[in-house]
Amino acid sequence: MSKLFIYNTLTRRKEEFIPLNPPNVGLYVCGPTVYGDAHLGHARPALTFDLLFRYLSYLGYKVRYVRNITDVGHLENDDDQGEDKVAKKARLEQQEPMEIVQYYSNRYHSMMSMLNALPPGIEPMASGHIIEQQQLVKKILEAGYAYVSNGSVYFDVPRYNEKHSYGKLSGRKIEDLLANTRELEGQHEKRNPLDFAIWKKAEPKHIMRWPSEWSEGFPGWHVECSAMSTKYLGEVFDIHGGGMDLLFPHHECEIAQSVAVSGKQPVRYWMHNNLITINGQKMGKSFDNFINLEDFFTGKNQLLDKAYSPMTIRFLMLQAHYRSTLDFSIEALHSAEKGFKRLMEASKTLKNIRPSEKSSVNIDEYIMPAFEAFDDDLNSPIAIACLFESVKMINSVKDGNESISLQDLSKFRSFFNTVVYSILGFKDEETGDAGNLASRLVDLILDIRQEAKQKKDFRTSDRIRKQLNDLGIEVKDGKDGAEWDWHNL
Amino acid sequence: MSKLFIYNTLTRRKEEFIPLNPPNVGLYVCGPTVYGDAHLGHARPALTFDLLFRYLSYLGYKVRYVRNITDVGHLENDDDQGEDKVAKKARLEQQEPMEIVQYYSNRYHSMMSMLNALPPGIEPMASGHIIEQQQLVKKILEAGYAYVSNGSVYFDVPRYNEKHSYGKLSGRKIEDLLANTRELEGQHEKRNPLDFAIWKKAEPKHIMRWPSEWSEGFPGWHVECSAMSTKYLGEVFDIHGGGMDLLFPHHECEIAQSVAVSGKQPVRYWMHNNLITINGQKMGKSFDNFINLEDFFTGKNQLLDKAYSPMTIRFLMLQAHYRSTLDFSIEALHSAEKGFKRLMEASKTLKNIRPSEKSSVNIDEYIMPAFEAFDDDLNSPIAIACLFESVKMINSVKDGNESISLQDLSKFRSFFNTVVYSILGFKDEETGDAGNLASRLVDLILDIRQEAKQKKDFRTSDRIRKQLNDLGIEVKDGKDGAEWDWHNL
Repeated sequence: MSKLFIYNTLTRRKEEFIPLNPPNVGLYVCGPTVYGDAHLGHARPALTFDLLFRYLSYLGYKVRYVRNITDVGHLENDDDQGEDKVAKKARLEQQEPMEIVQYYSNRYHSMMSMLNALPPGIEPMASGHIIEQQQLVKKILEAGYAYVSNGSVYFDVPRYNEKHSYGKLSGRKIEDLLANTRELEGQHEKRNPLDFAIWKKAEPKHIMRWPSEWSEGFPGWHVECSAMSTKYLGEVFDIHGGGMDLLFPHHECEIAQSVAVSGKQPVRYWMHNNLITINGQKMGKSFDNFINLEDFFTGKNQLLDKAYSPMTIRFLMLQAHYRSTLDFSIEALHSAEKGFKRLMEASKTLKNIRPSEKSSVNIDEYIMPAFEAFDDDLNSPIAIACLFESVKMINSVKDGNESISLQDLSKFRSFFNTVVYSILGFKDEETGDAGNLASRLVDLILDIRQEAKQKKDFRTSDRIRKQLNDLGIEVKDGKDGAEWDWHNL
Repeated sequence: MSKLFIYNTLTRRKEEFIPLNPPNVGLYVCGPTVYGDAHLGHARPALTFDLLFRYLSYLGYKVRYVRNITDVGHLENDDDQGEDKVAKKARLEQQEPMEIVQYYSNRYHSMMSMLNALPPGIEPMASGHIIEQQQLVKKILEAGYAYVSNGSVYFDVPRYNEKHSYGKLSGRKIEDLLANTRELEGQHEKRNPLDFAIWKKAEPKHIMRWPSEWSEGFPGWHVECSAMSTKYLGEVFDIHGGGMDLLFPHHECEIAQSVAVSGKQPVRYWMHNNLITINGQKMGKSFDNFINLEDFFTGKNQLLDKAYSPMTIRFLMLQAHYRSTLDFSIEALHSAEKGFKRLMEASKTLKNIRPSEKSSVNIDEYIMPAFEAFDDDLNSPIAIACLFESVKMINSVKDGNESISLQDLSKFRSFFNTVVYSILGFKDEETGDAGNLASRLVDLILDIRQEAKQKKDFRTSDRIRKQLNDLGIEVKDGKDGAEWDWHNL
């Protein structure tokens, strides 16, 4: 088995990935807060860790992949202020909060499925693990790292920092953090502005509330991931992933909570995907440049010139390394659409290639670098570049400029399909039964047209070409008959 | 608004449906225990209450539709014995119970979506509502209708029956129930064999467990629905649905639990769908005649001769009244397939019908009876029979034997589409973009063929017909040119 290296945010270097209990791997990824439609910012972590999940599975690991759904406790501001995001949406839409949760969870799942992101093995909801979160709060209190204040429970950051190091993951120093924090309104319950809520007493109007020994209330946002990852993956587990925006304070607080209770670092490898920009600008509500995933698929967004298919979005995302920022622009979308189409064309060509006696190409030169790229911190852009080297080779073989033996062809096909479909998770968007039927019908029409041409009935053959063109099908005449393609893919 | 009557199992008669807080309607339906694939027995309640949900929505009600997922507490035997169904599956498959839950929930959702059953607005999981269930247990204890025994809590049926009437829903008498119950092994914790667990102490090997004041354990199965329906719909709500197999003891126990706490009947209308037989025989594990929904769609089951589409299953189910038993046989499937196809053909014909100056038909005679059927306890078979009267009329108009005015045609189209697509929830299985493209390609091929015939090139025209036939497309020549159809729908 090759050696996989991944960049560990905790140590700030690439490290060989060695699981605690091979062949098992525990993977926890922060999922969506379900109060709105999934946008680009949701797609990137989903696809980054889908790639990781697929590659680990390819390497033979048995991955327990947990991705949570946050349906309670995520407040509007990180400083424990503001309304609960789900509860606010419920209030605005005059619905039960769980109706909001169900609606946006269903839509999230449908978008992820369109992007061909595999579903996680366990998808726990925060509201479904209140007892587990209360137990964690209790243990943190017992360990002396939290205090009760007016029915809420706060994590005592300075106290924790005396023995352990708060800020280890994000590289922040508590002195700097303190210097940059100002005392906020309504924060009088906290001893220190850096402290964070692990249980919040619910105000009278708050709908989502559960009884506890401290108050009727709800768990703090950071507690959820610690409680659920511990429940399903254990006190110490292999990989924790999420977007870079969650690094501080969310993941920092997760570490503090776990260390406070067990004294152990809970996660061996922390992985963070970088953020997305739109035309070079930060994506954000204040910039009015949010693009929902559905907008891409329908084209209905003022920032877009037309619809883009789910695989175009997947291709664009994986063509950037997950630790680089990724800029969305019309040019980038066009180029991804073209690139993906070229890849799919090569995949079709590969199906029809005939083997020769001997190979003029060394297929290992195409195969090895792709896996080396994945092993090097999931470097999908390089792996995709390797595939395009392969595409060139495939076309050379097709054109008769290179040759490939039966044995090499079979090995190469297996490599190509594994990387394209299993690891990178692309799928041919033309297929599906009806799609296949359409392809076969087009083939039938082109046979009829070929006959017309042989009979010198060019009126008919030209008309057929035009009619197919009207249906979005492009016909290219070659020396061995006609080839065809969809305009719109 | 017309008056909807539904059969209330509690009163054993059809009653006019009057919601508590119009236009709101609270609907709770018992969902699946997710430890195996969805089969016919899951499809029937899902489709019965999908029809109800759709019809209530059509009538203008705002329905809060709650359908639970049972992921804990459902034991192998109804007498509080045996292993937890989910935990057992997890043990056999060496997985975390929540992995089993996630896997089968995902598959259930995918099957329901294929059957075009609309997703409920809230889909609560039993494991996600442990606190709510514990609170209910506590209230029942406080009310004096339960007792703690060896860490478990049991509902005291004889005590409840002194003041209230246990067996009211199922029409059973407690004396008869007692006479028919034998003392079972390991039942020594119960004072009376009719008592049922509302909290179970977990044995050491049991994985799914939560702390409580009585023991580390898990909730009894019946408690889940009472706790979750109360949470999302209130102490008293409009409609509770489920399969007839759940009537006793599950729903009987739900009533007892709620009445014990609030003194009120929790549900105003109890609705139960009848059961399914396979070739006249009861469906059951011991008869080895389970047909999973996926089996129908793939045809891979020894009891089936071929694959049947989701809409064929939906049509077959709705062609029986939900309170009648429904027998599945190859003949019934063939006939449903044919019936559904005829309906879809008529829908297409209707699109192309040209209006005349005047109507020779009275369209109200077609429209009124269909809605009268729905209003009469959701009598979908009669509504479908009405549609087939409409189909005859549509064909008569098409053939020029009857005529219809523009105004009538527009009203009739709206009626037909509303009933077929919105209320009965059918969908045209040919559509979807690729499907439409295929239709247009076939039309193009038939144009080419028509030209060949005009040129007396019958070799070509016959060959095209044969080639289309090979692709599953049947060509029928008529005086006005050729018509075509799919073989397999």
